[in-house]
Amino acid sequence: MTDPKLNPKMNGAESLVHTLLANGVDVCFTNPGTSEMHFVAALDHIPGMRSVLVLQEGVATGAADGYYRMKGTPASTLLHLGPGLANGLSNLHNAKKGGSGVVNIIGEHASSHIELDAPLTSDIEGIARPVSHWVHTSKSAQTVGADAAEAVQAAMVAPGQIASLILPSDTAWNDGGVAHDAIDLPTPKPFDHGQLDHAANVLSGPETLLLLGGAALTERNLEIAGRIAAKTGCKLLSEWSNARLERGAGRVFVGRVPYPIDIALEVLKPFKRIVLIGARAPIGFFAYPGKPAILTRDDAEILTLADAGADLSAALNALCSATNATKTPPAHVVTADQPARPTGPINLDTLAAVIARAIPENAIVVDESVTTGRAFSPATKGAPRHTWLNNCGGSIGYGMPAAIGAAIACPERKVMCLTGDGSAMYTVQSLWSMARENLDITVLIFANRSYKILRGELTNVGVQNPGPRAIDMLSLDRPALDWVQMARSMGVEACSVSNCAALETALDDGLTRSGPTLIEVLL
Amino acid sequence: MTDPKLNPKMNGAESLVHTLLANGVDVCFTNPGTSEMHFVAALDHIPGMRSVLVLQEGVATGAADGYYRMKGTPASTLLHLGPGLANGLSNLHNAKKGGSGVVNIIGEHASSHIELDAPLTSDIEGIARPVSHWVHTSKSAQTVGADAAEAVQAAMVAPGQIASLILPSDTAWNDGGVAHDAIDLPTPKPFDHGQLDHAANVLSGPETLLLLGGAALTERNLEIAGRIAAKTGCKLLSEWSNARLERGAGRVFVGRVPYPIDIALEVLKPFKRIVLIGARAPIGFFAYPGKPAILTRDDAEILTLADAGADLSAALNALCSATNATKTPPAHVVTADQPARPTGPINLDTLAAVIARAIPENAIVVDESVTTGRAFSPATKGAPRHTWLNNCGGSIGYGMPAAIGAAIACPERKVMCLTGDGSAMYTVQSLWSMARENLDITVLIFANRSYKILRGELTNVGVQNPGPRAIDMLSLDRPALDWVQMARSMGVEACSVSNCAALETALDDGLTRSGPTLIEVLL
Repeated sequence: MTDPKLNPKMNGAESLVHTLLANGVDVCFTNPGTSEMHFVAALDHIPGMRSVLVLQEGVATGAADGYYRMKGTPASTLLHLGPGLANGLSNLHNAKKGGSGVVNIIGEHASSHIELDAPLTSDIEGIARPVSHWVHTSKSAQTVGADAAEAVQAAMVAPGQIASLILPSDTAWNDGGVAHDAIDLPTPKPFDHGQLDHAANVLSGPETLLLLGGAALTERNLEIAGRIAAKTGCKLLSEWSNARLERGAGRVFVGRVPYPIDIALEVLKPFKRIVLIGARAPIGFFAYPGKPAILTRDDAEILTLADAGADLSAALNALCSATNATKTPPAHVVTADQPARPTGPINLDTLAAVIARAIPENAIVVDESVTTGRAFSPATKGAPRHTWLNNCGGSIGYGMPAAIGAAIACPERKVMCLTGDGSAMYTVQSLWSMARENLDITVLIFANRSYKILRGELTNVGVQNPGPRAIDMLSLDRPALDWVQMARSMGVEACSVSNCAALETALDDGLTRSGPTLIEVLL
Repeated sequence: MTDPKLNPKMNGAESLVHTLLANGVDVCFTNPGTSEMHFVAALDHIPGMRSVLVLQEGVATGAADGYYRMKGTPASTLLHLGPGLANGLSNLHNAKKGGSGVVNIIGEHASSHIELDAPLTSDIEGIARPVSHWVHTSKSAQTVGADAAEAVQAAMVAPGQIASLILPSDTAWNDGGVAHDAIDLPTPKPFDHGQLDHAANVLSGPETLLLLGGAALTERNLEIAGRIAAKTGCKLLSEWSNARLERGAGRVFVGRVPYPIDIALEVLKPFKRIVLIGARAPIGFFAYPGKPAILTRDDAEILTLADAGADLSAALNALCSATNATKTPPAHVVTADQPARPTGPINLDTLAAVIARAIPENAIVVDESVTTGRAFSPATKGAPRHTWLNNCGGSIGYGMPAAIGAAIACPERKVMCLTGDGSAMYTVQSLWSMARENLDITVLIFANRSYKILRGELTNVGVQNPGPRAIDMLSLDRPALDWVQMARSMGVEACSVSNCAALETALDDGLTRSGPTLIEVLL
């Protein structure tokens, strides 16, 4: 291939593909339309971009989220105008809250066509802005390459950002494209050095918590946190939602701040001093009448040593030195341990035990189990090393798409996707892309046939004794979803289980074979 | 029930439900979350609101679109925070472009919680604005009733508008709600009387087109247009996309401006004078390199007698008088006529014929057939009276949701939903709500296993000889979707057909039984 920059006939779309590839963006989750056809055509003769077709854009953006968490570099999405972007918006919200970097390429009408207000015309920048850190509309084919490089740069601002590049179709089809070389990538900002000594002092005192989030949860950073905990006696916790948490035997264990507000208040009550590294001060997921929104004590001193955008490894290393813990063996290192083999019917405890026993070494667990999963964390503590991903933005429907992204980022690892039935339905089209790409994903659908979390929330917000109309609006049993037929309709092998032995066998099958499997777990 | 306005303990959510009911909004398409639980609870003890649960919010907003088209008054949607709204955004785009009135009720965190930037916090007004004509966040429980009345009023501005009311959860749960009575509804603005004489003169000249859209396409208004055409010799056309077109034997027929750009240019070339009533001047759906975006002659005189927001019946009546056509029998009245009974394999022509023969009297046809449906309009011209709905915003995935809304608006009528397989997948969750509500909808899935329209568009934008990677990104055959299993997984009866006789039988079954049916038409 000749140097693309010297090709006088390169169009804007070709300069875009060359630039993305030069900047390490070589995966595109896509659902293209007319305005994106030149990008599609460019992929034909420019090798190197893996294009993953999805049937609804929420799958594309959720996959890009999962991809970034596992790869550390962004994927691109290719979305059709404002409505295509809109379909992907809620999983971009999740990605934004999780600190994932994503490069959205959004088609737009040709510049001259926009003022005509055609049926598909919309305010694309307006739609993109609430979920994006960076929004830009290319002005000409000549600038597309530089714009794309800037988008990648924006996406790589720590911990990761949403960059939305809007491409009027004439900027894609016109000649004069200029591919851009690899751009300088941003480095994380420094942590708050001025707080270091105070943080070290505080941790050595009683009733102190070191609260971790984001990139503080890598294996290496957890080990450092374990040394600090061993030396100072501070407690360790992570946020409720973690973009990526390394867990399992041989690693330092951190629990999560619980979701249920009363339990969270209880867990956090002892702490008069809290040091934050990559985490935010704990608040309620929702507000509830008559309950506090801030989960920590009124008199708690909260000290941010490093926020999510800072160099968290540097912060932990410095704190380790400042507490003289560098030679201290880490606390909370997990010993390999599995729950006893459960038998009989599936309930939340036996379910947790079967899953814990099934997690393969080096697995990626994508968790959108909502109510069903509350017992998973303690049960899986001693499983072989694995990576656990939570939903960080609270918009359900992230799980199966994120599993796709994780599987494409890490083809050598097994992916387990744990999801409620209600959650899975938002982006059920994911199953087809799993089949198409033959991804090693085992999906467990927890079929409680209700929005069970809302039954609890109804009580939390003060609604006692809900009547039949309210309960009906939270129930998914009329008709019951048949997940086996659902999966097979999109080319995914599936089975339904209702006891521990059957679940064990199904998990074993799913995790050893190549390609996706769905297991409907009847609760 | 006591007068709700006198109830001192009414909360904001209750005042909202009372106000919606008092203003004729008695259907709610919903996918609620924690922040909407007080609305859900209010429905328990306030009778009169039909709540239709959906599994993804695009179904809710598309259903509200279809409902308004058939009922002429808005339904409400109940959506969970910014991400729930975001999932419904693309079908709100379609509703906005189609002139449908929708009242969105969007939950928000309690006012005090918003500044804490919880996981689900987002810029809800920012997300709503690009698809809404009216956006408002309630300030207190006291104002919720008045805000809701204003939202209904905004939704009823002709031809129909998107109103988005954002309800912080404390405004829902706090006492002090004040239900609002029925509000004065807006009336359509007057048409452009100053243009009337000129329009009448123009129509009597040669090479003149009367182009109709929106509410000009009712049975009665079409009859008037037919008189004008008979008297003046002008031609009649409607826009390519019509929110609601009354068709069939005994009614005045109008063709549509074609979608394919070259054919559209050809059809519009003769017209030197065009009078618009409820329609916009014809433009291309997309821009294509080297082709015009404006589909009419450069020298065409285009005269807007009434835009979509004006009183179109008044405009047509006045024009009829001004052309002395009130006593003239209408032109283009359709005689009952059916194509011959086709046999053998299904192709685009035999498919159109079978469908034309199956349309029951008074049916509602929701058309998202994209490429497959290009032969449907002439074939179905002489079918019994029926109503035809098009996608007006071009964001695919509108068909099955709109069919739900139409079926709920008109429980006494049969609904046929004609949709491509690619389109249907965007909002496939619709099938479950059809089953749950036992709606009389017969869904035909045209399974060509590709985004076939994009194959044509690839050529239109100048891409010759697409290679295997490009074609693969437009193909849905790896794996093939099994629509029978898909439908059954969500409780909908289904079958698959590949010849005319089987399709005829399946249509007959589907249209005579109660409840939904899906027919996969293999192409």
